[in-house]
Amino acid sequence: MTLERLSSNKSFGGWNQQYSHASEVLNCTMRFAIFLPPQAEERKVPVVYWLSGLTCTDENFMHKAGAQRVAAELGVAIVAPDTSPRGEAVPDDPEGSYDFGLGAGFYVNATQAPWKTHYQMYDYVVHELPQLIEREFPVTDQRAISGHSMGGHGALVVGLRNPERYSSISAFAPISNPINCPWGQKALGRYLGDDESTWREYDASELLKAKGCALPLLVDQGDADNFLQEQLKPEALEIAAEGAGAPLTMRMQPGYDHSYFFIASFIEDHLRFHAQLFD
Amino acid sequence: MTLERLSSNKSFGGWNQQYSHASEVLNCTMRFAIFLPPQAEERKVPVVYWLSGLTCTDENFMHKAGAQRVAAELGVAIVAPDTSPRGEAVPDDPEGSYDFGLGAGFYVNATQAPWKTHYQMYDYVVHELPQLIEREFPVTDQRAISGHSMGGHGALVVGLRNPERYSSISAFAPISNPINCPWGQKALGRYLGDDESTWREYDASELLKAKGCALPLLVDQGDADNFLQEQLKPEALEIAAEGAGAPLTMRMQPGYDHSYFFIASFIEDHLRFHAQLFD
Repeated sequence: MTLERLSSNKSFGGWNQQYSHASEVLNCTMRFAIFLPPQAEERKVPVVYWLSGLTCTDENFMHKAGAQRVAAELGVAIVAPDTSPRGEAVPDDPEGSYDFGLGAGFYVNATQAPWKTHYQMYDYVVHELPQLIEREFPVTDQRAISGHSMGGHGALVVGLRNPERYSSISAFAPISNPINCPWGQKALGRYLGDDESTWREYDASELLKAKGCALPLLVDQGDADNFLQEQLKPEALEIAAEGAGAPLTMRMQPGYDHSYFFIASFIEDHLRFHAQLFD
Repeated sequence: MTLERLSSNKSFGGWNQQYSHASEVLNCTMRFAIFLPPQAEERKVPVVYWLSGLTCTDENFMHKAGAQRVAAELGVAIVAPDTSPRGEAVPDDPEGSYDFGLGAGFYVNATQAPWKTHYQMYDYVVHELPQLIEREFPVTDQRAISGHSMGGHGALVVGLRNPERYSSISAFAPISNPINCPWGQKALGRYLGDDESTWREYDASELLKAKGCALPLLVDQGDADNFLQEQLKPEALEIAAEGAGAPLTMRMQPGYDHSYFFIASFIEDHLRFHAQLFD
């Protein structure tokens, strides 16, 4: 795997960069963004992985969340992958919808044709990308994971299934119970097929119910979020956490919606939450 | 003039909003963005006007600069107009260039056909927009002005020509001496005609030389900015300020480029600079 640097911008004394590389698990060229704080010039730093929501690329979070300021203060790197495999060879939803196919990989390993050849975002995020990051950049193997909406779902699922690989998990407005909402049912049904029992491995509420969680979990949810009732269902996550005795802090934020204005308002809390749990 | 609200997002306890209105001086419908800090629910707050650069709209700064956090702390509103008149009736550069016409109004009052019918951004920014803002929103008549690149030029020119209307001026990578750079010569020549003596009213370095300035001025400039030598020429502004005894603080920022990563890194300093000079 060779990395090609696509951009490099100084930001809060550190560097905001984009790279492309050939992904073996996704069978395509992928782009990711990384913020390296100033401390990374002198020592290895831990990494917060950020998983974005539907329609996003590696750029949205780095441009809109205002996370670099606090990451530079805390000495934490941020890595933001793209939200699906990309490129001309990668099939997209023939209907061209925004919530399936390109920009909507849902962080699963697809088992159904034609998706399974490229849509292996779970393995990419859990294994291939961290391996690349830890080989090529001045980072430790301490990791936290966070994300928004579809990416909040991804962060919860990835963290809950791999607690040994992360020190903490957080999410903004995650799709908390995808097997019971339209976004999740559409994506999981097409990527994984009709056997709904296979969907549970990608449902944060089901995972929490089945496996519990010892890692600290922080979730922020705006109460003016248009998707709250139909798609996000934070109450399912809360009930599962309570049943499992998991250390979930769920904060309902009055007046906030689903946008990056919401994420920007609370990203500082999430980064401080993750940083205090790194060694 | 009636205002139509196009969007409203809660942000750091305040509100980030977009409005459209019929502009009399521009002869078209215009959109602007406003951030109202939480303090505006209880009292009138001062306003920092932000003028954006080439190709931008009212959105870029509000999405990418991360300014709302500090504005919410300081109790300062931010107003970001668009960078040119807009709409089907508004002529654009027939060559479709990015540096003239739509998205490139240069904050001048055009005197040449066909531009003069709509391209009156100077009057819009100095008079019409603040009048509207001060009538429709909970703001005082205390104003500061800032901007980036073409908008840094605009902020300097607007502030230097109207010192009684602003308490401070700042800029990021401004086009400091447009009569002597390609961007400025192209735009001023087309909007104002061949008589270069009319260009000087829109050249910050010439204005500073001719009129001086008693207002505090803060300018940040990245030394890795691709446009530094050919287009921006901060040294002309420094020489003019020194000659005029103007209170200019010019900061060269090592390693920073022309992007919003640069703006985001230093916007906090600019907002604090403006806020301390409000009553």
